[in-house]
Amino acid sequence: MLNRATSLCRRLLPALVALVPALAVGQNAVARKPPTMADVIAASKPTDWVPLDPQNTLYVEMPAGRVIIALAPQFAPQYVANVKVLARAHYYDGLAIERVQDNFVAQWGDADHAKPLGTAERSVHAEFMAALKDVSFTPLPDTDTYAPAVGFSGSFPAARDPKTGQAWLVHCYGMVGAGRDNDVDSGNGSELYVVIGQAPRQLDRNAALIGRVVQGMQLLATLPRGTGALGFYERPADRTPIKSVRVAADVPQAERTPLEVMRTDTHTFAELVESRRNRRDDWYKVPAGRIDVCNVPLPVREHSAQGAGH
Amino acid sequence: MLNRATSLCRRLLPALVALVPALAVGQNAVARKPPTMADVIAASKPTDWVPLDPQNTLYVEMPAGRVIIALAPQFAPQYVANVKVLARAHYYDGLAIERVQDNFVAQWGDADHAKPLGTAERSVHAEFMAALKDVSFTPLPDTDTYAPAVGFSGSFPAARDPKTGQAWLVHCYGMVGAGRDNDVDSGNGSELYVVIGQAPRQLDRNAALIGRVVQGMQLLATLPRGTGALGFYERPADRTPIKSVRVAADVPQAERTPLEVMRTDTHTFAELVESRRNRRDDWYKVPAGRIDVCNVPLPVREHSAQGAGH
Repeated sequence: MLNRATSLCRRLLPALVALVPALAVGQNAVARKPPTMADVIAASKPTDWVPLDPQNTLYVEMPAGRVIIALAPQFAPQYVANVKVLARAHYYDGLAIERVQDNFVAQWGDADHAKPLGTAERSVHAEFMAALKDVSFTPLPDTDTYAPAVGFSGSFPAARDPKTGQAWLVHCYGMVGAGRDNDVDSGNGSELYVVIGQAPRQLDRNAALIGRVVQGMQLLATLPRGTGALGFYERPADRTPIKSVRVAADVPQAERTPLEVMRTDTHTFAELVESRRNRRDDWYKVPAGRIDVCNVPLPVREHSAQGAGH
Repeated sequence: MLNRATSLCRRLLPALVALVPALAVGQNAVARKPPTMADVIAASKPTDWVPLDPQNTLYVEMPAGRVIIALAPQFAPQYVANVKVLARAHYYDGLAIERVQDNFVAQWGDADHAKPLGTAERSVHAEFMAALKDVSFTPLPDTDTYAPAVGFSGSFPAARDPKTGQAWLVHCYGMVGAGRDNDVDSGNGSELYVVIGQAPRQLDRNAALIGRVVQGMQLLATLPRGTGALGFYERPADRTPIKSVRVAADVPQAERTPLEVMRTDTHTFAELVESRRNRRDDWYKVPAGRIDVCNVPLPVREHSAQGAGH
């Protein structure tokens, strides 16, 4: 019975963004079986990984711990800049999670609409898409319901349309976006949301995605759902406070979380994708042979101090 | 700023399975705008809805409330029968949620492997697929990454392959499946899991889906994630107890939750799907024009006593 409990998922998808320790495998690299994700990670080289850029990493400190967001300035440069201005002005400190809608988003901001934005921009131009020529793009081999092609751009799930020459980030679990009013230019990053359920891909190209959570998703995904319309909390007392939001570069070295993520433009990552497209362990009887972009995990791990330089 | 907070999602997806009250709209049915989901629901007829079958509905009573599961005997008749035998023998009562893995599944069962199965079957034949000719199927218009065609069969998201003549339920948020060992016939329904994140479609056709949660998903989705491998709790004290699991038909009428769900084989449901494929309100600038089967909500509401007969 333990087997039943554990075997179901011994070989299954860890969290989409999982903190994957280096696993002790790969002794028999000549084995005929295709490598599992654990094999691929164990066999990876230091150059298959890239540390988070402290200038483009946010630490969201919540009562239960730290949520770490990797920012995406390639796709939303003005939004990312504005969010950093707000963070450095301590704008978010003392605000709260004001909304959690099951299978959709958790959102924080100034529910009382009282806090001045300081020197930050009041409105940021809609950064919902980028020019394909300006961003990297590693396509996945499989079709997608929503876009002509999907894949990865840096550490982010993305889509592209060769006909229009556009690329955009896609709303997978853990992606972070900026709220806005009906006017496409009305957002500014003071309200941010995180996807906590099935990818709401209908939001793609309708809102600016500014990054993704790479650690601490469980702190957001387990928050009580709001009982008001759209998951807003009906009583202020139900909100979960945001203690602070800091740019990692502004945090003393000793207090940083030294994470690195797997590069997505490498042969190693292609092998990882293949290991997830076709699960080959003894539990799986019908390998899917394909994968949704939002089901591809991005391996994340702590790196040692000397590893930070590669 | 309230607008920014609320407008982002005033018109967005409620929970995949949302308890949708009849909304006061539809005054101007002649308006040119295509109907929203709220319009479609408001204009629906009693015959567009079907009450849950008490003989195929489970009430999972947890400390925080009731989780309601609609069973799928069309696809997993032996599993459903065995689960009902186990429920009626009070097998699940006093067991616990033993595992919650972020963005994957919550799972309950007999973590101590001590409870006798009584008259229930020890192993159930793999019911991972059904013959297409034996089940209803209403296709969606859009392509799917994983299957030749997807749509709905009764209240459940499903896929089909005309070449093989097979149909199967798909692993969307809220779907309930039965754990098993490596042997495909090794499951029996004593261990059940519920999808709490991005649809793990790689499980399709590899495990028996026996139903879906139609109310109370937030009680499962907010459970603390286990810190052990695969989200298993490391300390028994961390587990959340299952007070009881009952077949609704065995619960006194006054204690039942009288739910009805929208039929999926109607013109009304097709209109609802279309309203979600193309979001037409003022917030959306780029309607997706397509939808993933796991993004189609199944409207659920309480019905009045006299409505139960239709």
